Amino acid sequence: MSRTMQKRAVFFISDGTGITAEGLGMSLLAHFSGVAFHHVRLPFVDNIDKAGEALLRIAAAQKHDGARAILIMTLVSKELRTMFENSGALCLDIFGGYLQTLAAELDTQPIRATGLGRKVAAVDYRKRIDAINFTFGHDDGITDNLQSAEVILIGVSRCGKTPTSLYLAMQFGIRAANYPLIPEDLERMVLPGKLGNYRGRIFGLTIDPERLHRIRSERRPHSNYASIENCRHELHLAEELMRREGIRWMDTTTRSVEEIATTVMQQMNLDGL
Amino acid sequence: MSRTMQKRAVFFISDGTGITAEGLGMSLLAHFSGVAFHHVRLPFVDNIDKAGEALLRIAAAQKHDGARAILIMTLVSKELRTMFENSGALCLDIFGGYLQTLAAELDTQPIRATGLGRKVAAVDYRKRIDAINFTFGHDDGITDNLQSAEVILIGVSRCGKTPTSLYLAMQFGIRAANYPLIPEDLERMVLPGKLGNYRGRIFGLTIDPERLHRIRSERRPHSNYASIENCRHELHLAEELMRREGIRWMDTTTRSVEEIATTVMQQMNLDGL
Repeated sequence: MSRTMQKRAVFFISDGTGITAEGLGMSLLAHFSGVAFHHVRLPFVDNIDKAGEALLRIAAAQKHDGARAILIMTLVSKELRTMFENSGALCLDIFGGYLQTLAAELDTQPIRATGLGRKVAAVDYRKRIDAINFTFGHDDGITDNLQSAEVILIGVSRCGKTPTSLYLAMQFGIRAANYPLIPEDLERMVLPGKLGNYRGRIFGLTIDPERLHRIRSERRPHSNYASIENCRHELHLAEELMRREGIRWMDTTTRSVEEIATTVMQQMNLDGL
Repeated sequence: MSRTMQKRAVFFISDGTGITAEGLGMSLLAHFSGVAFHHVRLPFVDNIDKAGEALLRIAAAQKHDGARAILIMTLVSKELRTMFENSGALCLDIFGGYLQTLAAELDTQPIRATGLGRKVAAVDYRKRIDAINFTFGHDDGITDNLQSAEVILIGVSRCGKTPTSLYLAMQFGIRAANYPLIPEDLERMVLPGKLGNYRGRIFGLTIDPERLHRIRSERRPHSNYASIENCRHELHLAEELMRREGIRWMDTTTRSVEEIATTVMQQMNLDGL
């Protein structure tokens, strides 16, 4: 392409954290590959002054790019929404249309209050914090109180257990422990000590040897631990062990943490929050 | 209210993880307080067989509730979307309308491929994993390599530092360390040893004494640690210390992890991913 790439500023504007607007917005923008998006978060825009400041930033971006900005908004106040709708930018009002549709379907009026996302979060707050603390206390093979784990992830070192456990705890309030399969376990070819009692809650993670080699090499370059031969050997034994023990597992190589966590929940019939 | 509460099944249906659909959906539903929603996640619905299974579950829920189900969908395939649109349920097609609007604005066609949310995640995957590992390695006062922290959260035990650091790492790829202010630090009334070198990156968290007392009492009931007097005393000293040292802080009492993390980013000018 000889044409200069189109540049667009994208603003996520919310009277709350803006995390909903950003999550949806990023998914939408991923469908357009030929545009250079520059994104800006504007959380807690809940009064006219803050909206005014935001409008100045939007005007500057539009001037800089020589094109309309894109505003992805979750704003409850009609007054504030109108201010942005008059900015000349393209406004995607995420709540507006859907709330009307739902109100008609449910035959009830929506509550018009800012930061309602917070309330949802508050209800489940306690469960999530408990799960995070549990997961923090059951990382890397700590096995006391394992009977209250909802899932126990196993796999060789650096295959993705820690981020996945944390995501399960943080997003879904699931008490996820994780247990590394170390070379000694693999040579014995049995589940390490206490894990045998919780077979039904164990899920395995595996990974491509080349990728594991690269990840481990960053931590300990030129070590036997990181060598491609050792990675291949450990992964081969781990998969063999899981097969023998009848444990379900998945390959994490090309998956995001979100995808791995969602798959674990689906396979293990975990409901989460 | 003598009238029985309206019951509705809500299905989050996606060809990916469904996390975008669920995030938006939960925010929308929070606006309707008089309805008992029962929600079901249906991720990875990417072929006709899986859509067929989903339709059976939807039909069963509609029969059970005696009312239409609500489907909140992020599906790329028109064929699958049509299957759900013919189910008799109320369909909120999250991508559909917005993608059209954006395509017109950008004068470019959207890529029609499933799981594009994944790609976004994959680009930032490495940064997030690095941040999670960093945060894991710098919880609860571990201070080696603190110069590469983007933010250092301080506060008394159980005021919300660990969940906030993890959320910053997981959601925004920010390298967040945390450091507890223990009674010895508070009595000396100076920032503990190494922290003094990183004053510009420190942010404080505080909490209501009553709430701290309840949280600590769950961990160690009837201890001096959990007593309301001790909670008041520690919090008073911690706020005094932060005031003296010119450190910004916030009260976490009524906030969700998302709100605390977003506020920290805003106050510390952190961009995240």
